[in-house]
Amino acid sequence: MINPPKISKLTTEEKLLMGPGPSNIHPETSLAMSKPILGHLDPDFLRILDENQEMLRYVFQTKNTLTLPISATGSAGMETCILNLVEPGDTVLIAINGVFGARMKDVAERSGAKVETLTADWGSVFSLEEIEEGLKKFSPKVFGIVHAETSTGAQQPMEGLGALVHKYDCLLLLDCVTSLGGTKVLIDEWEVDAVYSGTQKCLSAPPGLSPVSFSQRAEEKMAGRKSKNRSWYFDLSMVKSYFGGERLYHHTAPINMNYSLHASLHEIVEEGLENRWKRHEKNHQILKAGLEALNIEFPVEEKYRLPQLNAVKIPEGVEDVKIRNRMLELHKIEIGSGLGAFKGKYWRIGLMGHTSRAQNVIRCLSALKECFLHFGYPVPEDPIEKAYRHL
Amino acid sequence: MINPPKISKLTTEEKLLMGPGPSNIHPETSLAMSKPILGHLDPDFLRILDENQEMLRYVFQTKNTLTLPISATGSAGMETCILNLVEPGDTVLIAINGVFGARMKDVAERSGAKVETLTADWGSVFSLEEIEEGLKKFSPKVFGIVHAETSTGAQQPMEGLGALVHKYDCLLLLDCVTSLGGTKVLIDEWEVDAVYSGTQKCLSAPPGLSPVSFSQRAEEKMAGRKSKNRSWYFDLSMVKSYFGGERLYHHTAPINMNYSLHASLHEIVEEGLENRWKRHEKNHQILKAGLEALNIEFPVEEKYRLPQLNAVKIPEGVEDVKIRNRMLELHKIEIGSGLGAFKGKYWRIGLMGHTSRAQNVIRCLSALKECFLHFGYPVPEDPIEKAYRHL
Repeated sequence: MINPPKISKLTTEEKLLMGPGPSNIHPETSLAMSKPILGHLDPDFLRILDENQEMLRYVFQTKNTLTLPISATGSAGMETCILNLVEPGDTVLIAINGVFGARMKDVAERSGAKVETLTADWGSVFSLEEIEEGLKKFSPKVFGIVHAETSTGAQQPMEGLGALVHKYDCLLLLDCVTSLGGTKVLIDEWEVDAVYSGTQKCLSAPPGLSPVSFSQRAEEKMAGRKSKNRSWYFDLSMVKSYFGGERLYHHTAPINMNYSLHASLHEIVEEGLENRWKRHEKNHQILKAGLEALNIEFPVEEKYRLPQLNAVKIPEGVEDVKIRNRMLELHKIEIGSGLGAFKGKYWRIGLMGHTSRAQNVIRCLSALKECFLHFGYPVPEDPIEKAYRHL
Repeated sequence: MINPPKISKLTTEEKLLMGPGPSNIHPETSLAMSKPILGHLDPDFLRILDENQEMLRYVFQTKNTLTLPISATGSAGMETCILNLVEPGDTVLIAINGVFGARMKDVAERSGAKVETLTADWGSVFSLEEIEEGLKKFSPKVFGIVHAETSTGAQQPMEGLGALVHKYDCLLLLDCVTSLGGTKVLIDEWEVDAVYSGTQKCLSAPPGLSPVSFSQRAEEKMAGRKSKNRSWYFDLSMVKSYFGGERLYHHTAPINMNYSLHASLHEIVEEGLENRWKRHEKNHQILKAGLEALNIEFPVEEKYRLPQLNAVKIPEGVEDVKIRNRMLELHKIEIGSGLGAFKGKYWRIGLMGHTSRAQNVIRCLSALKECFLHFGYPVPEDPIEKAYRHL
């Protein structure tokens, strides 16, 4: 027999999570996970699933029947959408202006699709004209684009996009991992056919589930498939039998994660979506004002900025890792590093869900000021003096 | 705007989970999930991941480096093993004697493998001779078999199997979803090349993660792949960069689920594997003695029975659904229905992990007796009088 390792009981410290997710969790959501566990076919648990679907429809602003949480994290939601919508050989067009568009391309290539791409600079967004050109040129069956690019903090404008994509007899696939619950997401109004998100961003539940939703058009494409889904775990034709009326066992749903999703969605229902969007916008304004005092700038044009995910340029001469380490170790605040092309040059300061509160913004700004002073970096103005007017 | 639904705050009732999983959770494991959330790249969280890997190696009884929890439930572990080990066109041989062998076949077919099968009656196991015949006939690259068939309660004998499979230059893939942490699992001694399990059975954590482990042989086959993994989410060549030294971001790990895994593995380390196996065996004996009083029999030959998953024949004239409903609604005890070919004819009474305690067995037996009396079914003897001698 191999001997047991010597390991102490789990302890974790309270930290303020202002990175690109996970965000902090409301105490009610945190407690929900410890409620007594139920079986995955227990009528009491099935009622919780039903309510989660109903609340997800509200948060997505959709009437789509096929709206449910996939039993894995956000990237699994991406894979679920692609593997169900796309059959090998289908042409798929992906818009890439950051890490997550590139990930969508990778997932689509693995699915056996013929993948074409549109590219734009990191931090920018796509115009309807650019997209129309791509649709004309490649005649794709599915067009995938990221609504909230977590690597750059850019928000894709959605007006007219659904109608345009449908004009070319194509389906619209949208990544709302970072936007859902933090900024406007209107799945029906925008005519989105497939959307995925994650729980650990603006929904403020722990990571582990990926809410998805599919339009009637998408359901029809899936119903007409000629080939079996390449994945068993992500095959919605089976997953939906568990969520729907038949309650056929597919896999064991993550019970306690669904409790936390219930609690976090309930918080949103209580707050109201519009209030929540306003709160995220307001706290972004406070942060922005304070960061200006430290000469920290935004790479993304103002009108395309995500209020909940602030990608900001690290000032000349300031060392990325030194600041992030001191923020985490001394101030117990996590801010995110840059990803991909933005690594070492940008930070990503998240103000998502339960993290997005004025007291947290002020705490972050004063901690940043302390770090700048400590390392002898310039502090041209006091961030709190700049920020307080926006509270 | 679509209006918010009217939904009450989450409540759940305490139930005794004696089905095929999820099992009940130790209070420490339950509380662990509510500990403060950390970022997925926080050094404090990475230490928790390291400790989980170390404790999983103990529970699997392996020194395999590539031992980690996949961020989804047990069936995703199955898919991970197959998608990483197998390339399209590879011949795979699957042994089927219940639902989960059949599922393995389904997953393997979707992976593009050429799938051959060995079949045996439900409730029976495979002999080395039968398996050798299959290996000779099909020359597979991977042979998949279920160690603990959750649909029938049968336990596959493992002596000599690894050596036999390797003699035919084949890799051994083993399903230990229901066995890990409840009955003997010796991955290195048995020469298993790939194994997957779930957290919600004998590990007594909530569902949501799937521990897997891969031998050096398996790692070599994966390193020599000619084609990219068809799945992005389950591609171990990327997942292992996050778990290994480089800490490359792949997907956001389910933080709180990893807390619960840590706590549940820590319980096992404290109890000791051998003590845990003995406890599961002893409680099975108590249950078995009590069930005899109600004329409830086991379909599986005694030496192949899983102590933690008791598939038992519903006595002639006893109505399956009536009993299970009364058990759940009045006694707050979940027992499992039969799956597939066993539906309506068998129950599955789980004694897994934290559920496997003498007081729970007695509670279940007396509740069953009450139900039998209530519906006027024969109770030839008192189950407690039969059971108490085994305590």
